[in-house]
Amino acid sequence: MSVYLDHAATSPLRPEARDAWLAAVEVTGNASSIHGSGQSARRLLEESREMLAGVLHCDPVEVLFTSGGTESINLAIKGLWWERKQGGSILLPDGEHHATMDAANWLMTHDRAEVRAVSLDGVGRISLAEFAGRLPGASLATALVANNEVGTVNDVSSLSELSAEAGVPLHLDAVAAFGHIPISFNSIRADAGSGVGLVALSVSAHKVGGPVGVGALVAARSAELSPLQHGGGQQRGLRAGTQDIAGAAAFAAAAVAAEAERDSERARLLTLTHRVVRGVQSVVPDAVLLGDATERIPGNANFLFPRAHGETLLFLLDQAGISVSTGSACQAGVAEPSHVVRAIGRSETDARSVLRISLGRTTTPADVDELLAALPIAHERAAASRSRADARS
Amino acid sequence: MSVYLDHAATSPLRPEARDAWLAAVEVTGNASSIHGSGQSARRLLEESREMLAGVLHCDPVEVLFTSGGTESINLAIKGLWWERKQGGSILLPDGEHHATMDAANWLMTHDRAEVRAVSLDGVGRISLAEFAGRLPGASLATALVANNEVGTVNDVSSLSELSAEAGVPLHLDAVAAFGHIPISFNSIRADAGSGVGLVALSVSAHKVGGPVGVGALVAARSAELSPLQHGGGQQRGLRAGTQDIAGAAAFAAAAVAAEAERDSERARLLTLTHRVVRGVQSVVPDAVLLGDATERIPGNANFLFPRAHGETLLFLLDQAGISVSTGSACQAGVAEPSHVVRAIGRSETDARSVLRISLGRTTTPADVDELLAALPIAHERAAASRSRADARS
Repeated sequence: MSVYLDHAATSPLRPEARDAWLAAVEVTGNASSIHGSGQSARRLLEESREMLAGVLHCDPVEVLFTSGGTESINLAIKGLWWERKQGGSILLPDGEHHATMDAANWLMTHDRAEVRAVSLDGVGRISLAEFAGRLPGASLATALVANNEVGTVNDVSSLSELSAEAGVPLHLDAVAAFGHIPISFNSIRADAGSGVGLVALSVSAHKVGGPVGVGALVAARSAELSPLQHGGGQQRGLRAGTQDIAGAAAFAAAAVAAEAERDSERARLLTLTHRVVRGVQSVVPDAVLLGDATERIPGNANFLFPRAHGETLLFLLDQAGISVSTGSACQAGVAEPSHVVRAIGRSETDARSVLRISLGRTTTPADVDELLAALPIAHERAAASRSRADARS
Repeated sequence: MSVYLDHAATSPLRPEARDAWLAAVEVTGNASSIHGSGQSARRLLEESREMLAGVLHCDPVEVLFTSGGTESINLAIKGLWWERKQGGSILLPDGEHHATMDAANWLMTHDRAEVRAVSLDGVGRISLAEFAGRLPGASLATALVANNEVGTVNDVSSLSELSAEAGVPLHLDAVAAFGHIPISFNSIRADAGSGVGLVALSVSAHKVGGPVGVGALVAARSAELSPLQHGGGQQRGLRAGTQDIAGAAAFAAAAVAAEAERDSERARLLTLTHRVVRGVQSVVPDAVLLGDATERIPGNANFLFPRAHGETLLFLLDQAGISVSTGSACQAGVAEPSHVVRAIGRSETDARSVLRISLGRTTTPADVDELLAALPIAHERAAASRSRADARS
């Protein structure tokens, strides 16, 4: 039996999402077609948009369906920047997701954008003072709602307020946070109606039990945004392409289900995560839980194992049938030290010595038991392997 | 009972695609994760890539999965242009899909691209002589394999050869053609190994019975291409984002099924389409079949009804339970005259007087009978409405 503790990379499809997808694919019709079939498809699409808007507390017209978190983030960063004209700068905190960093860096090399960094504190939280200090004159700012590696939740209301005061539009990457902590677009907006403060927020379906390949960008009506992909005038002209009605329906169903059980799941996951933390620290007393002690995604436990190589530990646990991660899955194919762990002030060696254990909807106490049963031998072997390697070098 | 004759806008999901999707969503795992679950997901993804490469006659590594035709086209046009540096020009034939036109036009306003037009002949085919004459010095060229409105198939081997001779990379939009006529990436390539001639080809899943929200860009290894969305290093670093394995599996299953029955379906659809053409012309003798008489997509019948407004006819047929289109669905929400009909030398009034009837896998002889039974009254009423409107003005 395999134990899946990598929900932060992707989470199993919820039955509600599967059923919504299956029902929606029975409706043949392009939502942009005028005829009755097209209009039936369109109604289903708009219902899904309303459901998602209900969960995210925004206007349905502000929900743009995309192909996932990466597209949403790229659309927000590039789209906002292109509208603010060239020659400006982007406020980019350390430890953001690679989609954000790479989009901003591409604008730097391709479109003469300047990138201004903002450092994180030791638990992975964006420094508000530094954020405020670097805002004046920026073209746009971006920030994670919760860090996808160490799980720390940022004070996004303050980030939005500071951005509004400085007259800067803000994008929030809520991909890792959505489904785990309450996200209210309208409440976070500091100056609704203006094009500054929070204007865009990215979410992804597969992190909340929806299908992969579906996401959304909440884009305020006041957001000045260029499209990333051009074509038919779908979705306010901001995201062309035939709309994936089944994907949208499945995403909406998953989001509603995740929202309905958020509080109970939070309590359940916190209990399980505490068990992981206590168990890991009793097996490996020098293991350090990274991220904030309380303001964190409930299913996230990211450990620094000072005596082991994270990737070795990952392989040994995988042999025992347990799936965990060393960091963001998008980069996990490449054995790079975690840039998030570096950003919270740890060494490069430390950044190669982490393991992200992420629990989710299908995680059971038995899964935690299996992890804790496998960890002692795995860690002992990983630590022995590291000390042999250190002795050779 | 509703009769769906708008397969060019979107085609019903094939059972094989549905089954492949359902099987694939049971595999939990991010294809970029190192652990066993991730690797199972990855194997499934790579099998799908191989299946699609088999149908399109290219190398699996050349298949980049995208969120659909619009993204593929945007990635090709913008990605090739960005790599060819700024200040160049794009060869853009008239009557291309809006995704292509709008992507090129955006590069014109945003990135100082020049756009060079190439005219179509009276049946909607790209003029080879004009194409050849405008190639020298261009940064890239693009062309439809088959026109999505009038169905005419272009001589893509010659377009590729001419581009290769002129040292220009060529993108082909095969969205409307795929599944209906054979597409061999390797055969069309004129100078394989070089970065000129055919280097990129766009296809979409939902036009061949796969799900909406999935597509692919075949990008030659020699293609110099910038990504449209940045992030994790997925798909040769050319298309970031968690890969939609279920979507890819469903697309591959649909493409293989469409390919397997292509010849038999071609014969069946040609018979049905001939029946539509004969029937329409016996009811409305002045109706003109647009596009080429023989070199066309087998299920496409695009008529000019000189005495009727296309949209009125569409509404009246819709009331009779028959779904057809006035043009590309992506623009159909907006009552604009067809730019394709204008490009083949017809007046603006003519461009508002067309109806695209597109047959597909689920079309039966009874569907054609219902259309032909409903057409006389619908056309009579539409023509009467038009002549009343003309009398008033």
